[in-house]
Amino acid sequence: MEEYERIDELGIQGLKIIQNTKGFCFGIDSILLSDFAKDIKKEAKVIDLGTGTGIIATLLCAKTQLSHIIGVEVQEEIAQMAIRSIKMNKLQEKFEVLTTDIKLLNKMLKPQSFDAIVTNPPYKTRNTGIKNEEKMKLISRHETTATLEDFIKISSQLLKSNGDFYMVHRPERLVDCLQLLRTYNLEPKRIRLVQPNIRKQPNIVLIKGTKNAKPFLKMEPNLYVYEENGEYTQEVKDIYK
Amino acid sequence: MEEYERIDELGIQGLKIIQNTKGFCFGIDSILLSDFAKDIKKEAKVIDLGTGTGIIATLLCAKTQLSHIIGVEVQEEIAQMAIRSIKMNKLQEKFEVLTTDIKLLNKMLKPQSFDAIVTNPPYKTRNTGIKNEEKMKLISRHETTATLEDFIKISSQLLKSNGDFYMVHRPERLVDCLQLLRTYNLEPKRIRLVQPNIRKQPNIVLIKGTKNAKPFLKMEPNLYVYEENGEYTQEVKDIYK
Repeated sequence: MEEYERIDELGIQGLKIIQNTKGFCFGIDSILLSDFAKDIKKEAKVIDLGTGTGIIATLLCAKTQLSHIIGVEVQEEIAQMAIRSIKMNKLQEKFEVLTTDIKLLNKMLKPQSFDAIVTNPPYKTRNTGIKNEEKMKLISRHETTATLEDFIKISSQLLKSNGDFYMVHRPERLVDCLQLLRTYNLEPKRIRLVQPNIRKQPNIVLIKGTKNAKPFLKMEPNLYVYEENGEYTQEVKDIYK
Repeated sequence: MEEYERIDELGIQGLKIIQNTKGFCFGIDSILLSDFAKDIKKEAKVIDLGTGTGIIATLLCAKTQLSHIIGVEVQEEIAQMAIRSIKMNKLQEKFEVLTTDIKLLNKMLKPQSFDAIVTNPPYKTRNTGIKNEEKMKLISRHETTATLEDFIKISSQLLKSNGDFYMVHRPERLVDCLQLLRTYNLEPKRIRLVQPNIRKQPNIVLIKGTKNAKPFLKMEPNLYVYEENGEYTQEVKDIYK
């Protein structure tokens, strides 16, 4: 264990994740995305773009019957943490890490050969928000090395026809997300918005697109994280359980 | 009064609407859109595209301080009902009706001269859904004479820069709506989804776009129409009141 590191229990099948307390620690976004993506098909070959500490890929190994998942991470130090978590969780046969810029994946992986892609990309555009953070957090949060369009474009190239793309993002960028997905033939098919509680505006959006599908969007009922009394709602308790 | 007609009270400032019970009668969509659009600015020059019986324009005359609104309706018979409602409500100085296909408006009205546009366009594409309805309902519900793109394109031509566009539509066509709005420089700025109740998926979407605005979408908290016991929620009661 390195200084600043800690191990968090995931509460499912005894799985754990190593995190750096000075870097970007996983939040509810990753937990909700792995739940939203649990309709990934049996035996699916999957990619997690920007896997970070591997939280989403690790949860998907528990929640779905995927056959293999590749976590792609550009930051060497974070990728190494993910690799140590994989060993700790004995997931070496299912989950491997590629340390590279996602924009180079079309030269490393076979196009149109994956069944599903999940991603929790950086939310902020290159020139917005506070930028005086640790470099590790900066790359995780801002579009410094790859833009939203890069994530969606490479996903379209790597997915089979009818393959599924799952993403978590911020509602203020919903128009960008939907427009880019349609541009790259990943037709948005299912959306779920997440509100902190019944009164507050949504602050998370979960989107599923399907490659070459026909337009018809299903909006799911919103998900509420907290009850009025500040406790988690039953639905969120069930997701965390 | 013609056969099949009835007069409905709107519950605000004594206003009433003449409707044809065999045609398309206004629903909660129109009520919610007129509430969603109540930030229309004082002295605004407004157009209601596809005004039907004039329900939205009539409510906006009561709920906002607009200076003038033109209701555009392609069906002569329905336009005549709207004109009779206008006289009944003594709104002749504020609200006028143009009986024409919306696609011809750019030849009849001055481009870039309106502050706001509201519209409840037909929801269904030309070749979907049940079509063996009365002709009057068919044109109100299906994109028979004008498509969603026609509504958005003409709106962009008629609005001033920074003018506002308000629309109600179905969530399954959200991607179409957002993509077309951005294409025609009516950047989506505010969205509200409406769920029948807290458990059911949204079946109405309210969208505000602003001409030539920068991208940044505000998703509002969802609106719920009914409580668990089947009564209207307080928010809907307040809107109807």
